[in-house]
Amino acid sequence: MLGTTYENQNCSAARALELVGERWSLLILRDALFRGMSRFSEFERSLGVAPNVLAKRLEAFVASGLLTKDADSNAAEHYRLTAKGLSFKPVVVALTAWGDQWAAPQGPPVRFEHEGCGGPVVSRLCCAKCGDSVALRRLVAIPNRDRNQS
Amino acid sequence: MLGTTYENQNCSAARALELVGERWSLLILRDALFRGMSRFSEFERSLGVAPNVLAKRLEAFVASGLLTKDADSNAAEHYRLTAKGLSFKPVVVALTAWGDQWAAPQGPPVRFEHEGCGGPVVSRLCCAKCGDSVALRRLVAIPNRDRNQS
Repeated sequence: MLGTTYENQNCSAARALELVGERWSLLILRDALFRGMSRFSEFERSLGVAPNVLAKRLEAFVASGLLTKDADSNAAEHYRLTAKGLSFKPVVVALTAWGDQWAAPQGPPVRFEHEGCGGPVVSRLCCAKCGDSVALRRLVAIPNRDRNQS
Repeated sequence: MLGTTYENQNCSAARALELVGERWSLLILRDALFRGMSRFSEFERSLGVAPNVLAKRLEAFVASGLLTKDADSNAAEHYRLTAKGLSFKPVVVALTAWGDQWAAPQGPPVRFEHEGCGGPVVSRLCCAKCGDSVALRRLVAIPNRDRNQS
């Protein structure tokens, strides 16, 4: 429930959050991304959310292009991830890593694995120029409007 | 405004989002993380948000341990990032990367740089076992309660 857009804030992170900041939206995406769910009834069972709320959230994702809706041969509705939806996966990984570190009193509920290999997957900040991992304090944001001023 | 916690959902990503999902919260963190802001008046000027809303959000971050509050020699209040707050930086990077790709009609408003080096910083999913970059479709989540069942 982030309400209307932040009109004066040209911020990609805020825009991304607006699409998943509604109650239940992130958990719907999580179930689609990591549990292979697509059917209305699967999301309903997983989340225990009221059907009218679930329908609203799924339709919002269809409207914003993260899911597409189709029907199988039994006329059951499926909500499937688009490329836009799939590419939200690293955001869920980053949110989860932070939550695991600071907000998981009973320990991390899940771990991320490299399918086939079985190794643990971690999100790293890398410098595309020097190849190093980038320490948090050495990561800076430069407004693109200043690109031609330096 | 994500409301109360998702009681039956043991999900670190959802818990992380609850702390920044309130309107303005993410933008306050962004200004603290990437623009070096700490004073009430700096956030107020940057965001154009009502003082009572800003005060509420800042106090919520103090209560949840992402910011600490102190006063300088002129009695001006400063809100400074804790380790917990600083470690939210990769989440903002991931949200921004997604927003840049899918929700930035005028192009990315900022770019992330490796301070000193000047190289572009990217967030990568890496396998800690084989060292490879991990394709989105090969990234899976394994419930930790199943650890002893396989």
